[in-house]
Amino acid sequence: MSDSFNRSGASPPKALDPTYEGDFVLDGSLPLDCGQALICPTLHYAVYGRLNAARDNAVLVCHALSGSALVGSWWPEIFAPGAVLALERDFVLCINMLGSCYGSTGPGSVHPESGQTYGPDFPLVGVRDNVRAQAQLLDSLGIRKLRLALGGSIGGMQTLEWTILHPERVERALVIGVTPLSAMGLALNHLQRQAIQHDPEWAGGRYLPQRPPRRGLSLARQIAMISYKSAPLFDERYGRNPDRSGEDPYVAEGACGGLIGGRFDVGGYLDHQGQRFIDRFDANAYLAILRAMDTWDPVRGYASPEEAFGRIRARLSLIGMSTDWLFPAQDVHRFAEAIRKAGAHADYREMVTDHGHDAFLAEQAELVRLLQ
Amino acid sequence: MSDSFNRSGASPPKALDPTYEGDFVLDGSLPLDCGQALICPTLHYAVYGRLNAARDNAVLVCHALSGSALVGSWWPEIFAPGAVLALERDFVLCINMLGSCYGSTGPGSVHPESGQTYGPDFPLVGVRDNVRAQAQLLDSLGIRKLRLALGGSIGGMQTLEWTILHPERVERALVIGVTPLSAMGLALNHLQRQAIQHDPEWAGGRYLPQRPPRRGLSLARQIAMISYKSAPLFDERYGRNPDRSGEDPYVAEGACGGLIGGRFDVGGYLDHQGQRFIDRFDANAYLAILRAMDTWDPVRGYASPEEAFGRIRARLSLIGMSTDWLFPAQDVHRFAEAIRKAGAHADYREMVTDHGHDAFLAEQAELVRLLQ
Repeated sequence: MSDSFNRSGASPPKALDPTYEGDFVLDGSLPLDCGQALICPTLHYAVYGRLNAARDNAVLVCHALSGSALVGSWWPEIFAPGAVLALERDFVLCINMLGSCYGSTGPGSVHPESGQTYGPDFPLVGVRDNVRAQAQLLDSLGIRKLRLALGGSIGGMQTLEWTILHPERVERALVIGVTPLSAMGLALNHLQRQAIQHDPEWAGGRYLPQRPPRRGLSLARQIAMISYKSAPLFDERYGRNPDRSGEDPYVAEGACGGLIGGRFDVGGYLDHQGQRFIDRFDANAYLAILRAMDTWDPVRGYASPEEAFGRIRARLSLIGMSTDWLFPAQDVHRFAEAIRKAGAHADYREMVTDHGHDAFLAEQAELVRLLQ
Repeated sequence: MSDSFNRSGASPPKALDPTYEGDFVLDGSLPLDCGQALICPTLHYAVYGRLNAARDNAVLVCHALSGSALVGSWWPEIFAPGAVLALERDFVLCINMLGSCYGSTGPGSVHPESGQTYGPDFPLVGVRDNVRAQAQLLDSLGIRKLRLALGGSIGGMQTLEWTILHPERVERALVIGVTPLSAMGLALNHLQRQAIQHDPEWAGGRYLPQRPPRRGLSLARQIAMISYKSAPLFDERYGRNPDRSGEDPYVAEGACGGLIGGRFDVGGYLDHQGQRFIDRFDANAYLAILRAMDTWDPVRGYASPEEAFGRIRARLSLIGMSTDWLFPAQDVHRFAEAIRKAGAHADYREMVTDHGHDAFLAEQAELVRLLQ
């Protein structure tokens, strides 16, 4: 979810090209927890490295809200020499989430029966539904067991769900910066949904591709950004400075007298983030993945947390980020304890960072140090 | 800013009626820091108790963003027996901010020269401008000196500005839950402004009174609410419960398939808060006061913090709230230290609360205990 490089002055780490990028079409229909089904959905995925003859070197990386299958592009430092993954050893697989707009079936896809794009009729595809679909892709590749599964944010939700749903198939799991969404997290998603829905261009979800709800999606992204970053980081980077373009917040500017003035620098930063985002993401896909995030409850369908977490066989590490406001470190810590209480092996580690939730993307080298 | 009583189950404390409520019209024009001026603006104010013969029992209460002059209605427990104010002793004055929609001149007022409402042409009226205008009202009442000035949030901004701008006129001041806005605070206001401006009904600020930008103002209020409250409070009150009206977040509802589902309870709470707010507040007034908040910098116009804060003669107390996310307690603490460093008398107190920024309104009895 980090798009911060351009305005922070840091140069983006070098992206890695996948060995293969392609589509897997599920055979038949994928029943969903919401009661509906997806007919022959497509999973778009990328692989890095080679599957060995024993097929026991597979690693699954699960991406965050706005990520894609191209993990080598958005998480390159995980592949750095001596870091978490090594292409001479690992076969790394990353699968675009259902509901997304980066190749897997989502609201922008064509419904195979109606011949129309799903649009707002795209069903609720939850985290667990995604994991079920991903398992079919792994089956098709002959991968029985994952040496490692890992991911941050909703990628961490998928990772943990893997260890519960398919306990025999995951040896080791890294669950980064995530718990089931708290009430505050649900509140933030509620605000973002409204930002999109209030845009008249949204048109009840039936907008034309060339006329999407740009302002609404930009505002949604900006609301999300304040929950991904931290107040100390904003103070350090932007403080109370006027926008770097030269606007003056202390006098009236534009057509609205004193009601709307020149921006402060943090306003310019947020606008920039919103603008970058609408050029690369789809509003309905955003809504679809917000719902997957909202509704993820690993205990749902089990009698108790003990029953759900007691299924886990993987060695788990949960990682909290000290300034994370969306998934507070102490919540991640408590979550790790609840899992441990059920008898699973789960340690907790904390990344000390000013970058808030975004740290797992914005400070990859630090994360790698913690994971080693 | 607290509107939480209805859904929290607590009964609102009993409101106090003012002794007098009326208007004061400034003689001539009020020059503003932005370079513009307000012609003969009106200050709407309320008083409680009686001014004594020596005129030395006056107390000024400054209200927060969406407050009004009726302090006896929104802060009644401050008047409880043995609390902060006593009507047998004090003459309590509260003045509606310029820019607001509760009686003082604001965007909804008629410009005396054009005969049209100001609307989006309402100039930037800052916190310092407000204090200058308020001083004229005090002059007209023959009040030279305030026994006490107090306020929370932007009311605290006004209170502190009083002690700097008119050092000889304030004996004691209570500045609650406030510092100059941090970058995160500026970011939150930036989001709220967009929520209003993106509403097509806003119409560049020239909406008809009967057709205001309701959805935009509601969303702005909801964004504000998440910064007024705390994550632990939301967890305790709403958790991950479905909305109490019976909606189911785990299945599709309404016309949008799986993209918009049934709400969680915190979503219902936020919608309720937004709805209540649009019935009582004006969008342009909201924008006007956001700007006053954004632009308040008590050091602006002085050579240094020492020069600004060195002017203060009042005994100051700054109060932080332990879970305040908008004005973090540690920021308030640091702010008190900066004031003290300049030679002013400023102590710091902290309210331990789960209510976040809103605690000064939501937990008045606790606040009173801290102030005693």
